[in-house]
Amino acid sequence: MSHNTFGHLFRVTTWGESHGPALGCVIDGCPPGLPLTESTIQAWLDKRRPGHGRFVTQRREADLVRILSGVFDDAEGARVTTGTPISLMIENTDQRSRDYSDIATAFRPGHADYSYFAKYGVRDYRGGGRQSARETAARVAAGAIARVVLGAEVTVRAALVQIGPHRIDPARRDWAEARRNPLWAPDAAIVPVWEDHLEKTRKAGSSTGAIVEVEATGVPPGWGAPVYGKLDAELAGALMSINAAKGVEIGAGFAAAALGGEANADEMRAGDDGPVFLTNNAGGILGGISTGQPVIARVAFKPTSSILTPRRSINEAGEEIEVRTTGRHDPCVGIRAAPVVEAMVACVLADAFLRHRAQTGGGAFRPGVSGRR
Amino acid sequence: MSHNTFGHLFRVTTWGESHGPALGCVIDGCPPGLPLTESTIQAWLDKRRPGHGRFVTQRREADLVRILSGVFDDAEGARVTTGTPISLMIENTDQRSRDYSDIATAFRPGHADYSYFAKYGVRDYRGGGRQSARETAARVAAGAIARVVLGAEVTVRAALVQIGPHRIDPARRDWAEARRNPLWAPDAAIVPVWEDHLEKTRKAGSSTGAIVEVEATGVPPGWGAPVYGKLDAELAGALMSINAAKGVEIGAGFAAAALGGEANADEMRAGDDGPVFLTNNAGGILGGISTGQPVIARVAFKPTSSILTPRRSINEAGEEIEVRTTGRHDPCVGIRAAPVVEAMVACVLADAFLRHRAQTGGGAFRPGVSGRR
Amino acid sequence: MSHNTFGHLFRVTTWGESHGPALGCVIDGCPPGLPLTESTIQAWLDKRRPGHGRFVTQRREADLVRILSGVFDDAEGARVTTGTPISLMIENTDQRSRDYSDIATAFRPGHADYSYFAKYGVRDYRGGGRQSARETAARVAAGAIARVVLGAEVTVRAALVQIGPHRIDPARRDWAEARRNPLWAPDAAIVPVWEDHLEKTRKAGSSTGAIVEVEATGVPPGWGAPVYGKLDAELAGALMSINAAKGVEIGAGFAAAALGGEANADEMRAGDDGPVFLTNNAGGILGGISTGQPVIARVAFKPTSSILTPRRSINEAGEEIEVRTTGRHDPCVGIRAAPVVEAMVACVLADAFLRHRAQTGGGAFRPGVSGRR
Amino acid sequence: MSHNTFGHLFRVTTWGESHGPALGCVIDGCPPGLPLTESTIQAWLDKRRPGHGRFVTQRREADLVRILSGVFDDAEGARVTTGTPISLMIENTDQRSRDYSDIATAFRPGHADYSYFAKYGVRDYRGGGRQSARETAARVAAGAIARVVLGAEVTVRAALVQIGPHRIDPARRDWAEARRNPLWAPDAAIVPVWEDHLEKTRKAGSSTGAIVEVEATGVPPGWGAPVYGKLDAELAGALMSINAAKGVEIGAGFAAAALGGEANADEMRAGDDGPVFLTNNAGGILGGISTGQPVIARVAFKPTSSILTPRRSINEAGEEIEVRTTGRHDPCVGIRAAPVVEAMVACVLADAFLRHRAQTGGGAFRPGVSGRR
Repeated sequence: MSHNTFGHLFRVTTWGESHGPALGCVIDGCPPGLPLTESTIQAWLDKRRPGHGRFVTQRREADLVRILSGVFDDAEGARVTTGTPISLMIENTDQRSRDYSDIATAFRPGHADYSYFAKYGVRDYRGGGRQSARETAARVAAGAIARVVLGAEVTVRAALVQIGPHRIDPARRDWAEARRNPLWAPDAAIVPVWEDHLEKTRKAGSSTGAIVEVEATGVPPGWGAPVYGKLDAELAGALMSINAAKGVEIGAGFAAAALGGEANADEMRAGDDGPVFLTNNAGGILGGISTGQPVIARVAFKPTSSILTPRRSINEAGEEIEVRTTGRHDPCVGIRAAPVVEAMVACVLADAFLRHRAQTGGGAFRPGVSGRR
Repeated sequence: MSHNTFGHLFRVTTWGESHGPALGCVIDGCPPGLPLTESTIQAWLDKRRPGHGRFVTQRREADLVRILSGVFDDAEGARVTTGTPISLMIENTDQRSRDYSDIATAFRPGHADYSYFAKYGVRDYRGGGRQSARETAARVAAGAIARVVLGAEVTVRAALVQIGPHRIDPARRDWAEARRNPLWAPDAAIVPVWEDHLEKTRKAGSSTGAIVEVEATGVPPGWGAPVYGKLDAELAGALMSINAAKGVEIGAGFAAAALGGEANADEMRAGDDGPVFLTNNAGGILGGISTGQPVIARVAFKPTSSILTPRRSINEAGEEIEVRTTGRHDPCVGIRAAPVVEAMVACVLADAFLRHRAQTGGGAFRPGVSGRR
Repeated sequence: MSHNTFGHLFRVTTWGESHGPALGCVIDGCPPGLPLTESTIQAWLDKRRPGHGRFVTQRREADLVRILSGVFDDAEGARVTTGTPISLMIENTDQRSRDYSDIATAFRPGHADYSYFAKYGVRDYRGGGRQSARETAARVAAGAIARVVLGAEVTVRAALVQIGPHRIDPARRDWAEARRNPLWAPDAAIVPVWEDHLEKTRKAGSSTGAIVEVEATGVPPGWGAPVYGKLDAELAGALMSINAAKGVEIGAGFAAAALGGEANADEMRAGDDGPVFLTNNAGGILGGISTGQPVIARVAFKPTSSILTPRRSINEAGEEIEVRTTGRHDPCVGIRAAPVVEAMVACVLADAFLRHRAQTGGGAFRPGVSGRR
Repeated sequence: MSHNTFGHLFRVTTWGESHGPALGCVIDGCPPGLPLTESTIQAWLDKRRPGHGRFVTQRREADLVRILSGVFDDAEGARVTTGTPISLMIENTDQRSRDYSDIATAFRPGHADYSYFAKYGVRDYRGGGRQSARETAARVAAGAIARVVLGAEVTVRAALVQIGPHRIDPARRDWAEARRNPLWAPDAAIVPVWEDHLEKTRKAGSSTGAIVEVEATGVPPGWGAPVYGKLDAELAGALMSINAAKGVEIGAGFAAAALGGEANADEMRAGDDGPVFLTNNAGGILGGISTGQPVIARVAFKPTSSILTPRRSINEAGEEIEVRTTGRHDPCVGIRAAPVVEAMVACVLADAFLRHRAQTGGGAFRPGVSGRR
């Protein structure tokens, strides 16, 4: 219900502004007895950190996470979750005390300055306040815990598949490659093309959009539920809540609109452990419930709204002004979004897992075999 | 929380299977004192009714709605909402008792037969049971009440902008035209193209996908909220929950990925009543909060999964089979989805309106004017 | 969240007014594959039916329940839950069309007439509308399904322990006896005392309060959770939501205030299957989590507000009036509340069971044994 | 939904263990523009602090609260809420690193040691971990913010009305007096009686129960709602969630069971601003909705479970042991509960206010006056 809470049973409540003393989250509903230390979370935070790669923002935050509650040593001395709320905190150490008077009352186009003003009448304008992408650090931290809940069998990995007008060749997609380069490119061949595009964009003080694809493997059949709790509906809501997201699609997505029924239907053959699907236009979800195929989604991100070219706008006094964003900024916010997309998918899946276990006890029926496995 | 409930304060709980005795919904949280009779709801149900137009399913349901609770006569004798739950019921009168033995244990490709089986182990296979598009009648009924909550100033209207590979010319879009033809086409010129495509599809026993666009005008600034309760995130979840939906985008959507920051930013000039935006790539939402511009979304629908061409599959016994769907079906489920898209957007907006009023008292701050209006 | 929904995972949404066409509920989140027919529910409804016993209201409702969705035949032909929403409807057949002009604008003391008016401005005054105890029929129906979810090992039974000033002797409490007499008295010796009190009350056109005790046996350790989801907090909220309830206590309850720590602490000895508690002042719950002992609660009900003696009040016009309630009414609403108390406890426990299974997988740790059972 | 979250629109999520580095809470849904500094919250925390008074625990915590997010300077430079999540943190500075090996695996009678073990298998046993009354500091902090939301017209104040067997004379109750003595006694005459009882209890290493009464004045008619969102049901759940609470009653409460209908009904006469009630057996709530009278509740607290007298129990290995609690402890936990009771009532009321404003726009209908005020 809460605007700043995500999930039903694996619940993540985030808090914090870009230039406040800290940001963090509280995870409630985590199963007990799972191994969890700060290093597990830190590893994922380090992947999203600003300053990671040439084309991401220059802000230097250590983003060191502290676990303030919800873990304790079990009988064997291993640090594990206790089933009580896990409070995580990341201090904001790089709050350069610059002068914000230029943007304190201005509405930067593409940013949420105006809409926050209209709704609340007051806003922390420093670094974007609550609308800052720094909030996504809390999402990544929560996602790290969601992965522990999901266990090793479920993997969630994202890759960029388009930067600006340059799209990868899907036939050459190599997920392992996406972990090897700072652009999250699943095809080494596209890296120089994107670098060239990003370099030109950066020099022009401009920005560019991007599309992130995410794949979750190992998701068993049966997660999700009709009709408003559909797994794809939960994913769509979660992914669209990421800053700068403008579109979400599952499986064939928008391309499905141009397909005929024969091409779109994913045929099945009998396998040892349930159906073997011959294609995956569904993106691993039918009727809102997982099928056992990889869950696949794509998210479109708009170009960063902070650009050097002056843009026309107004301010809180209603005066017409021009806004030009100086200072550090990413030319492509989509790059930093990749680990956030992973985190949100992990959180949705962890939640779906718990909800499925609640209603059914877990497991799934398999064709030709009696009972739930 | 509930899988079959939608909304936070304006809450819609739907129930019912395709071939059960009835389907319906309970709307809780509706403000009191609003005029509401069955005819108000029936008018919207009639627009979505199967049998409306040549290319929609031949099932003949009267879809007569009954209000079972939540309304009473006010002091002036007008029938109004009382603030208590509104229970709506639509009887299923056209449950042709045909033999379902051919699909009782088969997993029709593209349908949710397999995923329901895997999750629940038991399912009402008649006409798709709970996964049937008949459930959307309850959504449309709820949407009719949401419109009453929103009042006359907010209008929500959908149109098809693509059927199969044939997309409209956005420059020729005429929303009024979409109400005048059974294909919800916002451009009379595309109608014969679509009719030809649909006729060929129907004759081939095939099906085709589609894209629906929806626009809500009159939404004041300030609705929605960071960060997981973003208005666009709520819309994405709501729209992706519609049967056969595979993608959702807001404003420029996926096209934003290819844009540069200059083109994407919606510049503002001073108007009499807040900013005048020069473009609407944002789709009326910034940072998850409405800006006062029209809220714009698009939803991609896959082709109907029921087709005459045999498809390979398996059954509950794990045997390999071929499935061929006979009987009535829509060649393009997207056509019938248009009023459902409208209904879901209306429900999301009614909910956002109540949530905004809860936290702020309602209204919005305007540049150059003190206080909330 | 919703005002008319109860529960988190086993969710009950009720609707309907006393003199509308029908009332009912939707149960969402019920596990699939559980046997369920109308007769299972009807058996419990029959127990609460008005007209059952000499001292309950004369309204003659058949209270026949219909299942409109959520069940289907399994592979063996047994009717079972499918995991989709279960919609139940009970038609109001005894809506005597009497003249309500005497109470249409009057605020009956002790009833919610004034508070509904103040909040909503409009209300269905016929028979109390939504505030009528008829709403509890939907609770009892939902409770019947909750019992199926809980299974045979958990029993929930209520008894009256006080009517007016006459309290039972706890030492003589016999739960089986409570099922044998229409006053739900767990001691046959008190029946004539209560009957005499009720007969005098009825003849005087007066009414009397009562206290209901409820015991749930077979609840395993581990259900419930800190700190706002405490099992006793959930019970307290559920039981206080019953019409006319004015107090709820768990275990020793208010008497615990006068105890010293030595008397209050429930000592433990080692048993074959966990601790054996020597007393049960805790009422089966410690720190909000069940201990395996019987869960015990008591609910105080005020006397029926409808009495023959004229009471001073005002009406919607603000005029001072006198109100005297004629027509059928129960002299002691607490008698009819007993099955409702049982139903609410069953619903809370079914919900707690599912929540526990979600977070932990189910089962509990036992002293001296490794792992969860 | 979340076990550690309280409220629907004014939502409080608490976290932290007794001997972890810190505890705190996140408040989401707070209206924007309300004045809020740490000193506002600290003032209420100081009232509940251990060490306040002779008969409360000797643990010396400064309980200094920090606001980590959700406030900013408005245009006039006043620190106000921004409408984003307010994160509060209180560091645990007095974590005496004593040896906990004596209780690490023991189940202290009356404490939640066993039930936590059964549910989770692992628990932070130091100082009670999550079950410690230290968690209530976060409630008091949240309650301070709830009071700001409610504004000056609503006052919430608690008093002890019984300690052990010694009950106050209701006729002598003086709310102002309760603020003047450390025992929260609303009658100066009872103070020496209670002090004597507490001194004997303390010397005996024993403990004693208590009853706290709370009154909220200035609550307008119309807050709360049927049927599961009843204001009294919300209060009952909130108050029963406080550590050691065993009973909750509203208005006449359990005493109503012994009343006849004539005595119980609160008669009304016409006042300038709605009805004037001649009595308040209802405790300010009818049908779950506030009437404008003071809202009155009482909560029974069991005696502290930590006592010097050895009690029989078992441990995690299933061995029979004796437990004797040394170290600091309160002889009467009810004394420290008074400010917590106030805080929970304030939170429930703030939530009810926002929910009422959401559904109705706020205000209430008054007899003889048209429209909502």
